[in-house]
Amino acid sequence: MKNITTKQLLETLEQRYATKGFDPAKKISDEDAQALFQSLVLTPSSFGLQPWKFISITDQATKDALVEHSWGQQQVVDCSHMIVLCAKKETTPEDIEAWLMRLAEVRNVSRESLDGYAAMMQGFFSHMTTEQQLSWAKNQVYIALGQLMTAAALIGIDACPMEGIAPPEYDRILKLEGTDYATVVACPIGYRSADDKYAEAPKVRFPNEHILQSI
Amino acid sequence: MKNITTKQLLETLEQRYATKGFDPAKKISDEDAQALFQSLVLTPSSFGLQPWKFISITDQATKDALVEHSWGQQQVVDCSHMIVLCAKKETTPEDIEAWLMRLAEVRNVSRESLDGYAAMMQGFFSHMTTEQQLSWAKNQVYIALGQLMTAAALIGIDACPMEGIAPPEYDRILKLEGTDYATVVACPIGYRSADDKYAEAPKVRFPNEHILQSI
Repeated sequence: MKNITTKQLLETLEQRYATKGFDPAKKISDEDAQALFQSLVLTPSSFGLQPWKFISITDQATKDALVEHSWGQQQVVDCSHMIVLCAKKETTPEDIEAWLMRLAEVRNVSRESLDGYAAMMQGFFSHMTTEQQLSWAKNQVYIALGQLMTAAALIGIDACPMEGIAPPEYDRILKLEGTDYATVVACPIGYRSADDKYAEAPKVRFPNEHILQSI
Repeated sequence: MKNITTKQLLETLEQRYATKGFDPAKKISDEDAQALFQSLVLTPSSFGLQPWKFISITDQATKDALVEHSWGQQQVVDCSHMIVLCAKKETTPEDIEAWLMRLAEVRNVSRESLDGYAAMMQGFFSHMTTEQQLSWAKNQVYIALGQLMTAAALIGIDACPMEGIAPPEYDRILKLEGTDYATVVACPIGYRSADDKYAEAPKVRFPNEHILQSI
């Protein structure tokens, strides 16, 4: 089913930009925030394993504590919701089993009927080091970042993907140390300030022929 | 600007699923294909550097050659367009300079006015090994994968993200060996076959409280 025309799609993606200035007085409505949280939950992941956790921060003291570990980027403080995307550090056989049990429960099938799928997944992860498992999980988190930015643009909310953060300091402030999760990337969301000059700057991409190839 | 309601957004994301069976007779229109290619081009990336290349394959012989390096997944053969997402292997000072020149050209500003930005980027990459640069580029490619899957769902096109491929064999078949780019992940797109039983299967996610946290 087509929920949007190609023209609307491209207009949305053209309008989206990395917002440098948020209006601290403008807050995202609860309905919109819940929709964006749900768009994170609905993000596709490899095997469906969801090796992630998403933290939404509206507490001003926490935002204030994070900004100095974010290259001083003021969006952290001024945004409506500061979203921190975290990856699961490793994917153990127990994690895979937990996922299979969840799959069996929701789809109302037996665990045994998933044996083939289980073997494929166990094989995929058994060849990976813990470091490779974290890289894999980070990749999945970036799918979520992509879906979040697109979803936000579709419902008229501004966002700023942010790799320039100190993940270990984020982990400390967000009490992730000693847990299964680690900070990967952040994305403040909210509404641009009236004077954000980047809002109207032309989007810059390399020419299509450098990026696209058809065979 | 709101281009879609939260209800439409969530319906779209709920309807999207990893398509296991494509109808080989149903092809994506040129207008829709161009819109999806453009959604790849418009994907946000760190610093705007676009460390990627996207290959769209409709040539049946090439698709046939790829399937045996894709765990035999038939979607590679049956899809309308097989999209292969590739990462730039390293990001050199010359790459950064090329990007700055492009930025200066499109925004009609002097290269010198971008000196501060240049220094920040050079600093970011100077601390990275080539391997870390590739990991960083792969992360960006996964943003593109996320945006592609969401964009496809919005315009009613089915997709199947696919990590189960042999990237070195893809590189050989797609003649990427010896170039600056390497295969990362694939995503066949097209239209589901009438008998794809996964189309109606309930989407499975862990409970929200395992995935979302508010502070």
